[in-house]
Amino acid sequence: MTENHRFCVIMCGGIGSRFWPYSRTDIPKQFIDFLGTGRSLLQMSYDRILSIVPKENIVILTNAMYAEQIKQQLPELTDSQILLEPARRNTAPCIAWAAYHIRAIDPQASIIVTPSDHLITREAEFQKSIIAGFEFVEQNDALLTLGISPTRPETGYGYIQVGDTVEGNVHKVKTFTEKPDLELAQTFLRTGEFFWNSGIFLWRADTIIKALEQYAPDLNAIFEGGNDVYNTPEEQTFINAAYPTCMSISIDYAIMEKASNVYVETVSFGWNDLGTWSALFDMSPKNRDGNVTQRCQVLAYNSHGNIFAVKDDKLIVVDGLQDYIIADAGDVLLICPKSQEQRIKQMVNDVKITYGDKYL
Amino acid sequence: MTENHRFCVIMCGGIGSRFWPYSRTDIPKQFIDFLGTGRSLLQMSYDRILSIVPKENIVILTNAMYAEQIKQQLPELTDSQILLEPARRNTAPCIAWAAYHIRAIDPQASIIVTPSDHLITREAEFQKSIIAGFEFVEQNDALLTLGISPTRPETGYGYIQVGDTVEGNVHKVKTFTEKPDLELAQTFLRTGEFFWNSGIFLWRADTIIKALEQYAPDLNAIFEGGNDVYNTPEEQTFINAAYPTCMSISIDYAIMEKASNVYVETVSFGWNDLGTWSALFDMSPKNRDGNVTQRCQVLAYNSHGNIFAVKDDKLIVVDGLQDYIIADAGDVLLICPKSQEQRIKQMVNDVKITYGDKYL
Repeated sequence: MTENHRFCVIMCGGIGSRFWPYSRTDIPKQFIDFLGTGRSLLQMSYDRILSIVPKENIVILTNAMYAEQIKQQLPELTDSQILLEPARRNTAPCIAWAAYHIRAIDPQASIIVTPSDHLITREAEFQKSIIAGFEFVEQNDALLTLGISPTRPETGYGYIQVGDTVEGNVHKVKTFTEKPDLELAQTFLRTGEFFWNSGIFLWRADTIIKALEQYAPDLNAIFEGGNDVYNTPEEQTFINAAYPTCMSISIDYAIMEKASNVYVETVSFGWNDLGTWSALFDMSPKNRDGNVTQRCQVLAYNSHGNIFAVKDDKLIVVDGLQDYIIADAGDVLLICPKSQEQRIKQMVNDVKITYGDKYL
Repeated sequence: MTENHRFCVIMCGGIGSRFWPYSRTDIPKQFIDFLGTGRSLLQMSYDRILSIVPKENIVILTNAMYAEQIKQQLPELTDSQILLEPARRNTAPCIAWAAYHIRAIDPQASIIVTPSDHLITREAEFQKSIIAGFEFVEQNDALLTLGISPTRPETGYGYIQVGDTVEGNVHKVKTFTEKPDLELAQTFLRTGEFFWNSGIFLWRADTIIKALEQYAPDLNAIFEGGNDVYNTPEEQTFINAAYPTCMSISIDYAIMEKASNVYVETVSFGWNDLGTWSALFDMSPKNRDGNVTQRCQVLAYNSHGNIFAVKDDKLIVVDGLQDYIIADAGDVLLICPKSQEQRIKQMVNDVKITYGDKYL
């Protein structure tokens, strides 16, 4: 089996509401150059996979509203590599479409499915892990998920408990676990059996489609109905009609927690899901006051542990503020203690109730 | 003596740095509609005096850079009523020029000199006090200052101690006092002899010029040198050369604290100098969370006692902030505890050192 059967699906349809208002519906997190490197998180995800998967085998799954931004950020892709979801339906329908689409191109295809908005710092290690993962799923009818070696008792992630080792770093999955409380997370860390659920998957197209047939037959039937049109000019018309009829469900619930051929490859490549302001704060270099600044100038007096995310080179002068998020998006300013960041989703909801979509 | 000898000088050249960045060098405090009434502080000062002084007898003294804003805010004035200072030299040179300029129009002129950026809420009382003041200075060679009945032991103002009563509410001045500490301010309040120095003055043109001759002869000589050009096309050319040679000094230091014919009219017309964010906060209506908002939408969670001054109808979402100033001017955001507001001048200085004039 050569590398040319290897495909990559980058899921790029999220709206990033936990980073509101810095991340907005119109420019969500994955399109932002969070680390100031000149490349957005999406572009970094793309760059990272290029050494493993040929450019023409990369497929972006996104909401239709982001088509132009994707073309702008990844001009090297052809339109046929950008699959536009007409509605938001979580990861299972997205992954099912991608699997049927890619199998129609190459029945022998193996696929890595990856979010577009995570950070990975150790690229060589990432490359080694992904190649090992591809080799495993190419030789086995396996649904492989990547489990990140935990470095702290994080309560914001799901965990995967590993069972027997199959080969190398690949193990059977014993359980999937929802976000634990702190005490449980500390226990998880001590046992050494629990790994963070990364949301990165590898499998062959035929393997995931077989799993869909078995564990999500309704969903599968919808995409099977398009077998004549994938990779034809009619594909989008079919999807526009069929996709909204899918139920909204994650691939974890629909398949991974039910299937028996689920495996986890334990990896350690400097992963951060950048899922929260605190995660971004922790990842980011601090200035001498212990503050993190995103694209702005800050004069800080008696202020430490804050993260300033402000667009357009604005100057912030701040006094007497500890451990806050200060996020300015032009027409919206958010000031919120880092310890309260789980409330931001509720705030966004309140904003929607009060002002409609204007500030979302 | 008829009303037509009555003139008004509105001093309008301040840069409002204590309200930075909401008040900026290019649009200082007096040009802002702080109370959301549709009229700026300057326009309110103008409106207030119109019932006492005929429109054509109102003179605006301002820095040359604000000429266009004045014309825009007070289009009913002619260009000859707007005197443009080529440099900032505090109040004494400004008042001296205005006195010479007005005396050349009307040798019998009496003048009220008033800042443009204070708030006065009881206009009928104001009108009564000003007319009584005009009558006093028209009948006496008096330098009259207005002393506000204090309502709290304010440490941010200068005080005037009254001596013997001359007539009505007019008294001899016993002492001028700098900003007291809290204990002294409390004593001031108890004695009933101390009044806030409002910076509003009344006198005849010839009386103030006589005082300048006696107590500020160097300054006086400069403006006396222009006696041939006031109210001619050459006036501005003369001023452009002469004005910058004046020393920068307040009218209080130059004249009021030295002259023997200084009187104070004690008044009580709902005066607030709006000199600080806290003063503005105290004056302003609070919303149900106890916050004050200036031209913005605020969603506040666990946040009280803050003042939000933000331009352009921006939405602020804030959590866990008590007694802060949040001032957003587009390219600058200030977040500062109200208790630290005396540090804002230093911050502006730091900004100037670090970034030059860009954010001033």
